[in-house]
Amino acid sequence: MCQPRPVTDTPVCVLGLGLIGGSLMRAAAAAGREVFGYNRSVDGVKAAQFDGYDATTAIDAALSRAADSGALIVLAVPMPALGSMLSHVRAHAPDCPLTDVISVKGPVLAQVEAAGLRPRFVGGHPMTGTAHSGWAAGDEHLFADTPWVISVDDDVDAGVWAEVMHLALACRAFVVPARSDEHDAAAAAISHLPHLLAEALAVTAGDVPLAYALAAGSFRDGTRVAGSAPDLVRAMCEANSEQLLTRLDRSIELLTQARTNLAEHTSVADLVEAGHAARIRYDSFSRPDILTVTVGAPQWREELAAAGRAGGVIRSALPVRGSRG
Amino acid sequence: MCQPRPVTDTPVCVLGLGLIGGSLMRAAAAAGREVFGYNRSVDGVKAAQFDGYDATTAIDAALSRAADSGALIVLAVPMPALGSMLSHVRAHAPDCPLTDVISVKGPVLAQVEAAGLRPRFVGGHPMTGTAHSGWAAGDEHLFADTPWVISVDDDVDAGVWAEVMHLALACRAFVVPARSDEHDAAAAAISHLPHLLAEALAVTAGDVPLAYALAAGSFRDGTRVAGSAPDLVRAMCEANSEQLLTRLDRSIELLTQARTNLAEHTSVADLVEAGHAARIRYDSFSRPDILTVTVGAPQWREELAAAGRAGGVIRSALPVRGSRG
Repeated sequence: MCQPRPVTDTPVCVLGLGLIGGSLMRAAAAAGREVFGYNRSVDGVKAAQFDGYDATTAIDAALSRAADSGALIVLAVPMPALGSMLSHVRAHAPDCPLTDVISVKGPVLAQVEAAGLRPRFVGGHPMTGTAHSGWAAGDEHLFADTPWVISVDDDVDAGVWAEVMHLALACRAFVVPARSDEHDAAAAAISHLPHLLAEALAVTAGDVPLAYALAAGSFRDGTRVAGSAPDLVRAMCEANSEQLLTRLDRSIELLTQARTNLAEHTSVADLVEAGHAARIRYDSFSRPDILTVTVGAPQWREELAAAGRAGGVIRSALPVRGSRG
Repeated sequence: MCQPRPVTDTPVCVLGLGLIGGSLMRAAAAAGREVFGYNRSVDGVKAAQFDGYDATTAIDAALSRAADSGALIVLAVPMPALGSMLSHVRAHAPDCPLTDVISVKGPVLAQVEAAGLRPRFVGGHPMTGTAHSGWAAGDEHLFADTPWVISVDDDVDAGVWAEVMHLALACRAFVVPARSDEHDAAAAAISHLPHLLAEALAVTAGDVPLAYALAAGSFRDGTRVAGSAPDLVRAMCEANSEQLLTRLDRSIELLTQARTNLAEHTSVADLVEAGHAARIRYDSFSRPDILTVTVGAPQWREELAAAGRAGGVIRSALPVRGSRG
C-alpha cells in the first residue's frame, strides 16, 4: 500500500533509464529526492550503479518497493514497452501515483485506461532531448529551463497532479499544463514534423555530389535531429500518426504551392514571408507565470488548460487544495 | 591601371558592407590587409566609419581608388544590385581582379560575362552567415573554419584565383574549389532548400494552438533560418531557381511517400532510416587537405574541381606557377 507523505518527500521510481529516465534520476537525486529505478538491460543498470545510483533489472522488486514507500512511478520506457510495464504496475503497485515521460499523450492515456490505472495517472512530457540515447547520454541539467507538459484532462486527480508538478520543478523544468489531445496536435507540429523534414533534407542533400563538402549552418541545424536513433524517431512519430498526418499534409501543401510559384513566377515570396512572420511571432511569444490557480479548486483543470494555451507556465509550485505540504 | 604587387599585400575593395561584406572588411583588416569599401546607405557607412573602417557612399571614387591601387574588388551586394555594380566596375576599374560573395554562382557568372568582365573574374561564396543582416551584424570571426567556395570554371585566371584564395585564407576560412554549376546544385540542397523547409515548418506550427508554448530544440533548430530577412532569402532562392526546383521536387516526393506509408502502414521507417544514414554519412565526411596542386599548372582547374568534389579543402596557400610571392 502507498503511505501518505509530505508531497515533496515522495520517493521517485523511474522505469527505464535511457536518456530521459536516466536524466530524470540524476536531476531528482540532485534535488535531494529519494530515487530508484529499473532498466531492462544489465549494461544500463551497471552503468547507473557505477555512477552511484540505485538501479535494478528486477521490475517486480522495484515496483514492490514503490508500493511500500508510496513512490511516484515514472514510466520512462519507449511506447512499444508501455503495455508490459503497465501490467507490472497493475500487479505490484496499482495505488501509487503514476506519470510518464513519453512524447505522445493520447495513446498513452488510452493504454493506461485499458490497464485500469487511470485514476492515479497524470501524463507528462518533458520537451527536451539530445540526438543521443541511453544512460550515458543522460544529464541532470537536461530539463533546466525547458517545458514539461503535465496533462489536465477532465478527470485527473489533484493530488497526483501536484506530485508530478513538484517532480518537474525539482528537475528545474517549467510546467506547461495542457490537455492530452491539444498536446499531441502541438507535438506533431513542433517535434514530429521537424524530424521528418530533417530526414527528407538529409536524404535530398545526400544525393548531390559536393553537397556535404559545402554544408554549413543551415544544413547542420536543419538535419541535426536526423542524427537521433531511428527507432526512437519512429516510435514517437508513429505513435502520433493521426496528428502527424494532418501536419505533414499541411507542410507538403505549402511546399507544393511554393514549388508552383517558383516554377511559374520565379518567386518564393508567399512562403518566405509567411514563414518569417511565423518565426518572428514565435520569437516574441511570451511565457507569463501562472500564479493564481489552486490545484484542486473548482474548475482548476479548465483554468490551467486555458492558461497553458495562452503561453502560461508554472515556475514555482502552485498551492494545492487540502495539501498537507 | 592596376599596379602589380606581391599577392598578399593586394588591397581589398569591398562593394556592399552588409553582414558578409562588413565581416569581410573586418576580417581582412584584422589580417593586416589594406581594405576600403563602398556602401549604398549613409547609415551603414557611418556605422563602419564609427568603428574605424574606411568606407564611403561614393562608388566611383572607391573604384577609382581600386584601379589606382590594383585592389581586389569584392562584389558583396545582393543579387538584384549586381548589374548596377558591374557597370560601375566596368567604367572605373575594368582591369582589377574581381570576385564576389553572392550565394549563387552560375547567374553571377552570366552577368559578369555580359558586362565584359569575365577575364579578371573568379567567383566566390563564403558558406557562412547568421540570421541577422547589416553592418552591425558583422563579425571578423564569421568566416573562421567555414567553407569558402572559389570557382574553378574552365577559363579562370590563375593569378586572380590565387588572389581570392589568399583573401579567403586571410579571413581564416578554408577553401573549397568547385565549378559554378556544381556549386549551385549543392547550394540548392544544403542552403536554399533548408530555408524553404524552415519556412514551411514555421507556418505549419503557427496554425496550431499551444505549438509555440511547447516548442523546444527541434522546432528552434528547424526554424532558425526562417528568422533570416525575407528579401535575402528570396534573393538567394530565386537566383538559383532551376537547381532549387529539382531539390524541392525531390523533398516533396520523399515527404509524400512518407505520408502514404504513415497513412497505410503507420510507418515512417523508410524515410527515417534513409535520413539517419545520410546524416551519419555527413557526420563522418572527411575533409582532406589539398596539398599537391599548383595553381596555374596544366590541368590545375580540373584537378581542383575533382579534389573539392571528394571533400578536399585548402587550408594553407597552394603554390602558384610564376608567382612573385
